Amino acid sequence: MITLASDFGSPYPAAMRGVVCRRSDARVVDVAHDLPRGDTTAAAFWLRFVLPEFPPAVHCAVVDPGVGTDRGVLVVRAGEHVLVGPDNGSLLPPARALAGTDDDAGGAETVAVYAADPGDPASNTFHGRDVFAPLAADVHGAVAGVREGDWDPGAVADLDDLSPAGDYVAGDLPGATVTADRVEAAVLAVDGFGNVVTSAPGDAVDGWAAARVGNVRAPVVATFGAVPAGDPLVTVGSHGNVELDVNDGRGDEAFGLSAGGSVVLRRTE
Amino acid sequence: MITLASDFGSPYPAAMRGVVCRRSDARVVDVAHDLPRGDTTAAAFWLRFVLPEFPPAVHCAVVDPGVGTDRGVLVVRAGEHVLVGPDNGSLLPPARALAGTDDDAGGAETVAVYAADPGDPASNTFHGRDVFAPLAADVHGAVAGVREGDWDPGAVADLDDLSPAGDYVAGDLPGATVTADRVEAAVLAVDGFGNVVTSAPGDAVDGWAAARVGNVRAPVVATFGAVPAGDPLVTVGSHGNVELDVNDGRGDEAFGLSAGGSVVLRRTE
Amino acid sequence: MITLASDFGSPYPAAMRGVVCRRSDARVVDVAHDLPRGDTTAAAFWLRFVLPEFPPAVHCAVVDPGVGTDRGVLVVRAGEHVLVGPDNGSLLPPARALAGTDDDAGGAETVAVYAADPGDPASNTFHGRDVFAPLAADVHGAVAGVREGDWDPGAVADLDDLSPAGDYVAGDLPGATVTADRVEAAVLAVDGFGNVVTSAPGDAVDGWAAARVGNVRAPVVATFGAVPAGDPLVTVGSHGNVELDVNDGRGDEAFGLSAGGSVVLRRTE
Repeated sequence: MITLASDFGSPYPAAMRGVVCRRSDARVVDVAHDLPRGDTTAAAFWLRFVLPEFPPAVHCAVVDPGVGTDRGVLVVRAGEHVLVGPDNGSLLPPARALAGTDDDAGGAETVAVYAADPGDPASNTFHGRDVFAPLAADVHGAVAGVREGDWDPGAVADLDDLSPAGDYVAGDLPGATVTADRVEAAVLAVDGFGNVVTSAPGDAVDGWAAARVGNVRAPVVATFGAVPAGDPLVTVGSHGNVELDVNDGRGDEAFGLSAGGSVVLRRTE
Repeated sequence: MITLASDFGSPYPAAMRGVVCRRSDARVVDVAHDLPRGDTTAAAFWLRFVLPEFPPAVHCAVVDPGVGTDRGVLVVRAGEHVLVGPDNGSLLPPARALAGTDDDAGGAETVAVYAADPGDPASNTFHGRDVFAPLAADVHGAVAGVREGDWDPGAVADLDDLSPAGDYVAGDLPGATVTADRVEAAVLAVDGFGNVVTSAPGDAVDGWAAARVGNVRAPVVATFGAVPAGDPLVTVGSHGNVELDVNDGRGDEAFGLSAGGSVVLRRTE
Repeated sequence: MITLASDFGSPYPAAMRGVVCRRSDARVVDVAHDLPRGDTTAAAFWLRFVLPEFPPAVHCAVVDPGVGTDRGVLVVRAGEHVLVGPDNGSLLPPARALAGTDDDAGGAETVAVYAADPGDPASNTFHGRDVFAPLAADVHGAVAGVREGDWDPGAVADLDDLSPAGDYVAGDLPGATVTADRVEAAVLAVDGFGNVVTSAPGDAVDGWAAARVGNVRAPVVATFGAVPAGDPLVTVGSHGNVELDVNDGRGDEAFGLSAGGSVVLRRTE
């Protein structure tokens, strides 16, 4: 299986699908192609969220604000999975999640980072088509039997144009400062419905009745339906992080937050 | 085959795709993931419209405004198809269409409704990933040979955690009041182009030259191209219902209508 | 393989997927369903851009502003590919690209245009479901072995309801007037990010340091990252045409351009 993710919108991803189908018989599954444009942190977050649901696969993930510059090309082995994409920090957080470790420094056995030669791509602006999709197809061919269970991650290292990466962008996701009554966190992403995903772990608000964010008070609840439509809420999202939402409305507008910003939650009644 | 439908936007459906691919070798086909958010009537309408085009399949359809509350989980056998989703009325109208009957009360042989145990889902907000996608994969496994034609719907009943549902939300779609010169109907949905789909059957406007809706007069025509660009029209949509449109424009704005509302058409010249 | 492209948005393409899956065991891949609505020139451009990336396939491409009128139905053989869609100029430019020729007048051996009988479609507004998807499935069945390499394009002609087309809309894409210091071109399309694709070939701006478009000066560069965020640029897109963009912004707004218009670039320092 080869999965495809990008911030290319449409119809560009069709070219990636075509390239992969032409070079490989692998099953091809789209992850998403409307990842926040050029936002490598949001890409790392969303990929870390959804890729671990997949069976072993080659994941071609292209959020690439540095396309056409000299940024590197990575192939990352992560347990039974492989990620292919630009060297900008978007791949390592999902790789660590796929490998079941939060440690890539010492995780040589499960997370291994290779640099690939981009060759001489036909364009300077669409390496999704010209570099990453063909590379993903070739990597998939090199590691036979992805779906059948006899996946051999070691075979990736046999690709002629791969070598262990020296430096690469680790792309650690922002953390959070948590005390009993106050949480300071980054806004990792805002989803299409306006839900604000923070970098705070869900247990940071354990036992809180409500939180104050700026001058908005929102109850800490288990799900949207626990508050009336139009009301703000704080909940633990399905990714395990603290989320600021509005039932049947937009949390980003209600709380005045956007991706890349920071947020302080104060415990209240 | 397993189809996936939801109102989750993106990238959440990727997690459902992953779950299904991990638990099943079935072919996976997306129906749509931008169904109107939380609108179970519109979901029932759109699913009734498109699912009957598919070959026998397990359809996982999750428009679920009650996620995290105690609403039930249904598995609905419908002829050679099975639907899996929340108990909120979104599944029965398409089930009756898939079974080729508009009668589920007496249609025990073709439409059968089971309740499933949701288990202990990992999240309160994403049962598409945690409840419905795994259930759809398991149901598909239980009823072998969907694509091969030796589909055995009865095998669904063998799943340990299924039992015939007692009460469930029937989710009948709104009807219409039709006389020779006047039609009163509900607005079932507005599509992405602004076309207004009503609950009136197409033959309600048989023989009409034009209709007046509020203070807008629109000719009753066979297709968009029958009026100049920018002009309103009344037509019978490909779903068989009366539709209010604007050629190369937005019908919802021209007629001042939105989903969930009602509309009166008066016959005119 | 059968690919599907349209301007239908969502959820209409699901009906096409269902029809194709019901009538064929072919692999089904979506190209895009948000092609610019009713814009046959933009459709021709985007299809010419992405379809050549695919392996041999039947491409069902439905941008069809004349649906329900008496416009024809075409099946176009293009090398090892076949296109199915309305007779409005959207199919021939991609067909010539798929066949590796820019000449369909004399390219009888590689591009051949057939007219199909639309039959008696169930609707006047959704021929994607009622005419083109079933026809694509049937054509795929007639030309066995698409993926396996033993593709026999001649077998298309055996379909009872196909005959060589007499007249059809050639749909030549607009050209450009190029001199050393001035380029006059059409705006073929604006993509979802606001990038303005012109009809000028990339070499028209070879050696230019910068271009003036109206009162906007933009450097001619190799990629987005060559200018600061928010700045305009002229580049050669991955389709080989001159493109007017803004790094991390919208080129259509910065340059005041929209699809279907024309643009003049003047060489400057």
